[in-house]
Amino acid sequence: MHGVDASWRLVESELNLERLGQSESLFALSNGHIGLRGNLDEGEPHAQPGTYLNSLYEQRPLPYAEAGYGYPESGQTVINVTNGKLIRLLVDDEPFDVRYGQLHRHRRELDFRDGVLRREVEWTSPAGQQVSIRTTRLVSFVQRSIVAIQYEVTAVDAPARIVLQSELIANEQLPHPGDDPRVAAALGAPLESEEVQPNHTGVVMVHRTRRSGLRMAAVMDHLWDGSDDVLVSTDGHPDTGRVTLSTTLNPGQRLRLVKLIGYGWSSQRSRPAVRSQVEAAVTAARHSGFDRLAAEQRRYLDDFWTRADVSLVGDDRIQQAIRFAMFHVLQAGARGERRAIPAKGLTGDGYDGHTFWDTETFLLPVLTYTAPKAAADALRWRHSTLDLARERAVQLGHAGATFPWRTIRGQECSAYWPAGTAAYHINADVADAVLRYVNATGDTDFHREVGCEMLIETARLWMSLGHADAAGKFRIDGVTGPDEYSALADNNVYTNLMAQRNLRGAAEVAAEQGEVASSLGVTADEIAEWRAASASMYVPYDERLGVHPQATGFTDHERWDFANTPPQRYPLLLHYPYGDIYRRQVVKQADLVLAMHLRGDAFTREQKIRNFAYYEALTVRDSSLSACTQAIVAAEIGHLRLARDYLQECAYCDLDDLHHNTNVGVHLANLAGLWLVLVAGFGGMRDHDGNLSFAPRLPSPWSKLRFGMGWRGRQLRVDVGQTDVTYKLTQGEQMTVRHHGQKVIVKPGKGITREIPPLVAPAPVHQPPGRPPLRAASEPFLS
Amino acid sequence: MHGVDASWRLVESELNLERLGQSESLFALSNGHIGLRGNLDEGEPHAQPGTYLNSLYEQRPLPYAEAGYGYPESGQTVINVTNGKLIRLLVDDEPFDVRYGQLHRHRRELDFRDGVLRREVEWTSPAGQQVSIRTTRLVSFVQRSIVAIQYEVTAVDAPARIVLQSELIANEQLPHPGDDPRVAAALGAPLESEEVQPNHTGVVMVHRTRRSGLRMAAVMDHLWDGSDDVLVSTDGHPDTGRVTLSTTLNPGQRLRLVKLIGYGWSSQRSRPAVRSQVEAAVTAARHSGFDRLAAEQRRYLDDFWTRADVSLVGDDRIQQAIRFAMFHVLQAGARGERRAIPAKGLTGDGYDGHTFWDTETFLLPVLTYTAPKAAADALRWRHSTLDLARERAVQLGHAGATFPWRTIRGQECSAYWPAGTAAYHINADVADAVLRYVNATGDTDFHREVGCEMLIETARLWMSLGHADAAGKFRIDGVTGPDEYSALADNNVYTNLMAQRNLRGAAEVAAEQGEVASSLGVTADEIAEWRAASASMYVPYDERLGVHPQATGFTDHERWDFANTPPQRYPLLLHYPYGDIYRRQVVKQADLVLAMHLRGDAFTREQKIRNFAYYEALTVRDSSLSACTQAIVAAEIGHLRLARDYLQECAYCDLDDLHHNTNVGVHLANLAGLWLVLVAGFGGMRDHDGNLSFAPRLPSPWSKLRFGMGWRGRQLRVDVGQTDVTYKLTQGEQMTVRHHGQKVIVKPGKGITREIPPLVAPAPVHQPPGRPPLRAASEPFLS
Repeated sequence: MHGVDASWRLVESELNLERLGQSESLFALSNGHIGLRGNLDEGEPHAQPGTYLNSLYEQRPLPYAEAGYGYPESGQTVINVTNGKLIRLLVDDEPFDVRYGQLHRHRRELDFRDGVLRREVEWTSPAGQQVSIRTTRLVSFVQRSIVAIQYEVTAVDAPARIVLQSELIANEQLPHPGDDPRVAAALGAPLESEEVQPNHTGVVMVHRTRRSGLRMAAVMDHLWDGSDDVLVSTDGHPDTGRVTLSTTLNPGQRLRLVKLIGYGWSSQRSRPAVRSQVEAAVTAARHSGFDRLAAEQRRYLDDFWTRADVSLVGDDRIQQAIRFAMFHVLQAGARGERRAIPAKGLTGDGYDGHTFWDTETFLLPVLTYTAPKAAADALRWRHSTLDLARERAVQLGHAGATFPWRTIRGQECSAYWPAGTAAYHINADVADAVLRYVNATGDTDFHREVGCEMLIETARLWMSLGHADAAGKFRIDGVTGPDEYSALADNNVYTNLMAQRNLRGAAEVAAEQGEVASSLGVTADEIAEWRAASASMYVPYDERLGVHPQATGFTDHERWDFANTPPQRYPLLLHYPYGDIYRRQVVKQADLVLAMHLRGDAFTREQKIRNFAYYEALTVRDSSLSACTQAIVAAEIGHLRLARDYLQECAYCDLDDLHHNTNVGVHLANLAGLWLVLVAGFGGMRDHDGNLSFAPRLPSPWSKLRFGMGWRGRQLRVDVGQTDVTYKLTQGEQMTVRHHGQKVIVKPGKGITREIPPLVAPAPVHQPPGRPPLRAASEPFLS
Repeated sequence: MHGVDASWRLVESELNLERLGQSESLFALSNGHIGLRGNLDEGEPHAQPGTYLNSLYEQRPLPYAEAGYGYPESGQTVINVTNGKLIRLLVDDEPFDVRYGQLHRHRRELDFRDGVLRREVEWTSPAGQQVSIRTTRLVSFVQRSIVAIQYEVTAVDAPARIVLQSELIANEQLPHPGDDPRVAAALGAPLESEEVQPNHTGVVMVHRTRRSGLRMAAVMDHLWDGSDDVLVSTDGHPDTGRVTLSTTLNPGQRLRLVKLIGYGWSSQRSRPAVRSQVEAAVTAARHSGFDRLAAEQRRYLDDFWTRADVSLVGDDRIQQAIRFAMFHVLQAGARGERRAIPAKGLTGDGYDGHTFWDTETFLLPVLTYTAPKAAADALRWRHSTLDLARERAVQLGHAGATFPWRTIRGQECSAYWPAGTAAYHINADVADAVLRYVNATGDTDFHREVGCEMLIETARLWMSLGHADAAGKFRIDGVTGPDEYSALADNNVYTNLMAQRNLRGAAEVAAEQGEVASSLGVTADEIAEWRAASASMYVPYDERLGVHPQATGFTDHERWDFANTPPQRYPLLLHYPYGDIYRRQVVKQADLVLAMHLRGDAFTREQKIRNFAYYEALTVRDSSLSACTQAIVAAEIGHLRLARDYLQECAYCDLDDLHHNTNVGVHLANLAGLWLVLVAGFGGMRDHDGNLSFAPRLPSPWSKLRFGMGWRGRQLRVDVGQTDVTYKLTQGEQMTVRHHGQKVIVKPGKGITREIPPLVAPAPVHQPPGRPPLRAASEPFLS
């Protein structure tokens, strides 16, 4: 195995069946197109089997006991597709199952640089036959349709009769989800068989989803060595394909099987076309062989880490956590190629496999600076749904486009409109991601082709949603902000400030890209209206308390009775009615505080200090989309210790299963948030209106933080120490940044070092009783 | 037939199959326990067959695509029970069906004084055989379990072979409802047969609802005369019971059949007990015979009309409409006897047969003054659900009791909480009805037994819902007021003012009824808190506009774009998303204006004038619960012409099917509202805090308005002319009322006459474009 630095891998050295669901998510492999949960090769025991193809979904009716105009009638749910990662082992006719016989050794390792999941097992069957098993699984970043598994089994003490059943299984039986509404709805047998073709050493299977009518092909092929006497048979049924290898191994003899699985799907192409495409991919992979696939994978990741690695001296576990996080962020976004990036990536079926605003607001800032092509692809996916968003706007009586709160393909799938359709901020979040991407990359083709149109259509939405009041202020009433413990409020500060940026951005781009703008019918008057609305955007302020209310009237509401809320009644939404939560001052997740991060240019430092203290005392973090933002703003203000506490909550969210639901998939936005905490929090990076600035400052036990960022063809490296910071260009031309407000010109070659000004720490702040930052486990499940 | 005054009956002189649904609702008969839609005796054609027993419901799951804490899991739906009103006629083997052969004459008449539905038909069969049919149907007010039908068939020209099949049919096949969410969910075959027993001249059937487990018995028996040669046979199957009479009639010979049907149900009693109870009722009815049943019915109604009739000189059709309305109000409430009074009464299955706040706010004020025992029964039903309301409060995290927004048995059945659970005002509406009933009747037993407890438990709810703000004002945030085009607003004026009355009433009653209060754990401190909250209740006011916002912030919202809303897009809720409606200034139904009626003591005349003008321009009346209130406040302010227009809209709502949904049942609260418009509107009756006052004033073409009201053992008659008013006690001791603000002592015997002061008419007001008061049909369907 590679290197000695434990921070480049995640290791499970004991099998804990009770945490199987969590480890299946953590050990999931994906390239953004294919996702495999970290299920054991032999399929069982499992918590949730999972094989996903990005955007391959099934429709399901959305029932309403009381219907309403504009409610979506049909939802989309990611499905568990044909499972190709199954390799069953029989030793002297006894199936290898860790629950029986004796498991002497178990080790799994997710390697962030090799991009593989390794497994080592020593097992004695109930009949006393011992074998050693090593497997290596990869989902190729380079050959996008390919999964490869190397499965090695060795007889230990005595000759062993070995049978390997390598399978493709469609419509696997799934365990039932719980009552938690956040867990995806189960869908039974969504795939209809169209074709099964057992070949010499493999099987081809084509299926189609019953209602959404999407066609998928799964093809497996096999290579093997280690024994001259292998009997091979192949068979196929509508939902089951199998290649069986049978041999006898002498002590020390090792049978090595390489299983290659290809996946593809299409909503339009014919059965032969889909099938042939996948067969071709498998043929190419067979030509590469396992070792070349593995070598390509390593090269792909080496390139990524060169740009994206964040290194840290002073906290080894955080160091590992950020690499784990960035590995999953890459896996989710790398080869999505104009498909949505779901909130769970392809690591589980939580949230029905839907994508939300998280992707634009948390994930894309990270990808923009570390894997910009993936960010562009994700935004091009959004753009591909623009016609659907225009239709939705018409349906809702709005101008422009209304992007869905949750979706796979682009249609609104939210069945609870106060926290779905009403969360219009997603439209400004998309616009924000567009502006950030364009500012960071200077990708004018992108801007002309897709960015411009999205900015204009979302600006139109805001104009039709808002209105100028009697005092001439532009108000946006009756919307739900990021905090889901309030709803349908007037002038949510986050929404209004993000809409302001959106309108301003649209006005600028429409002036710049005159041709695109005029093709969309934009007139000078319309641009002037956007500018006027943006300039007069209303931002409520509570003079009495000297803070910004999250929305009009928020600070007049009764405070939540935190003192009488026992720990087991969190998350509140599962134990109190929405009505009771909405009417009080209690914050699920950063909202005004998120505005202070993303629209930090709209607040003074004094306002930030007061607002942060006020909302800190109200925020319960029942969402994983909060700790990172609180950490970032805490770091900016100077609450370094608190920022580090929130960093830890963010870092260990999935590794320690702090929200008790990592089993349905990792919290991708939170993982991206970890990068944001390090870069925007302790690095103080801000990018308002395309101006890159830093204000780094390390918390006490750390001696070093280093991160890299792409910027318009350049690669900037920032080395932060306790007292000074070095900015260095490892690629590209001279650039200007700000360091704690001071202009710094970074030239190619030698870095430029600046001192960190002394910290003026503000008065301490407090969380609601019983809601301090979550602690990492004292004995981590994984190392 | 009785009398010559057309205002005492509703007549259909032609059969219009397209309006069958409407006429089935208008001609429905009920005594509050049993309800029969005005289906033709022979069953078909029909729009919606309907036979209902008050509170006999079936459960159905309430589905949620996204579940939430506290959402009710199960709903209750009124069911079409065993249909006993079916009498099929065969003439020379051809079934009598108005769609075949030739219908020479058709007339139906609902007689408000006799309390019967009469029908006269002359029909020639396709084979040329002519018969004359007369039927009279009644649901007895006196013998509560009994329906009686007299069916007379006469051969006209030639001898006719006549067969009558008199049936009991359970689980009738029902037509499908439309997509309109307001139409009740269909439930197929809800009844399971427990027993069928054909007897000599009748059939006994016992069924049980599948899920709610309610047992019902339907028993029919028959008497006949007119022919000596009648062959009778009886048979019974699980869902079908039939008595067949067969004879031959000579020209001019008449066969008269009296069908007696008894109904009863129980959630607890055994099969023999329920069956025997109903058999006993039928035996007693048989003993009475049809004529005595009819005579009792007339006596019951004579007594009612003596107290409740409103007479009017100057508009004959309104005169008829108010009698029609009061007849249905009585039918809904008369013999409910501690069951809920549904929004549609027992005239159709609209709104799933649920009861809402309408009953307490619109129906009970009328019953309180005209049929107080029915009002007491309805409130005693509410009280019987108090334990369920306490459980619901616990579930929702509130103190005291939370009554359901919609229910049959008492459990919350609303599946859309922003317009259900959040409409907490229903609790104050119940309290208001209690206070009104007690003030109007002086019924101290009622108060001690049930009223007191309801006031106290609802007061406790308000204390836990609201809170004192920094300025010491008592705020109630995040609630939905009566207007369903706004939701989840802070300090809805109606809600706050009604809660204020509730808290004040609870404080008073707790002090008076010390024993009851202390048994509920009420302390002096608690009473003091109620008084303090009531005294400091926050009522928002918009200084800039000089009007009360319906709720905090309402007047800052954008106005609905009425000019660009075409007529076919009303009602708005079926054509625009809630989110778009909620965020704008548009009012479905009187809300602030209702507050000005029910809490008129909390507004100055100037405020009423300004507020009325403001809300008049925003109110689209997509609800039938609006015109009456607008009429009342318009009349108070002096917009007499407008008040009369709204009176007409109210009067013809069902008669002219102005809302296009009378087919699913009459709009009972609107019908009660007609009495309110005449008595509280043109009579100017107010009863704030038990002080009875009048400010009568007639619109121009009327010369006389007379109404009666019960008041603490008295019966007051008010005769309003164009220039003066006479107050007269027809029963009971001296009392004091106010006449246009002046104290008047009314003594037994001769009435006291007072002049009507001159009207100071305010500036004209305007409705939204395209939303003037609805007009009566120029050619009414019925006369």
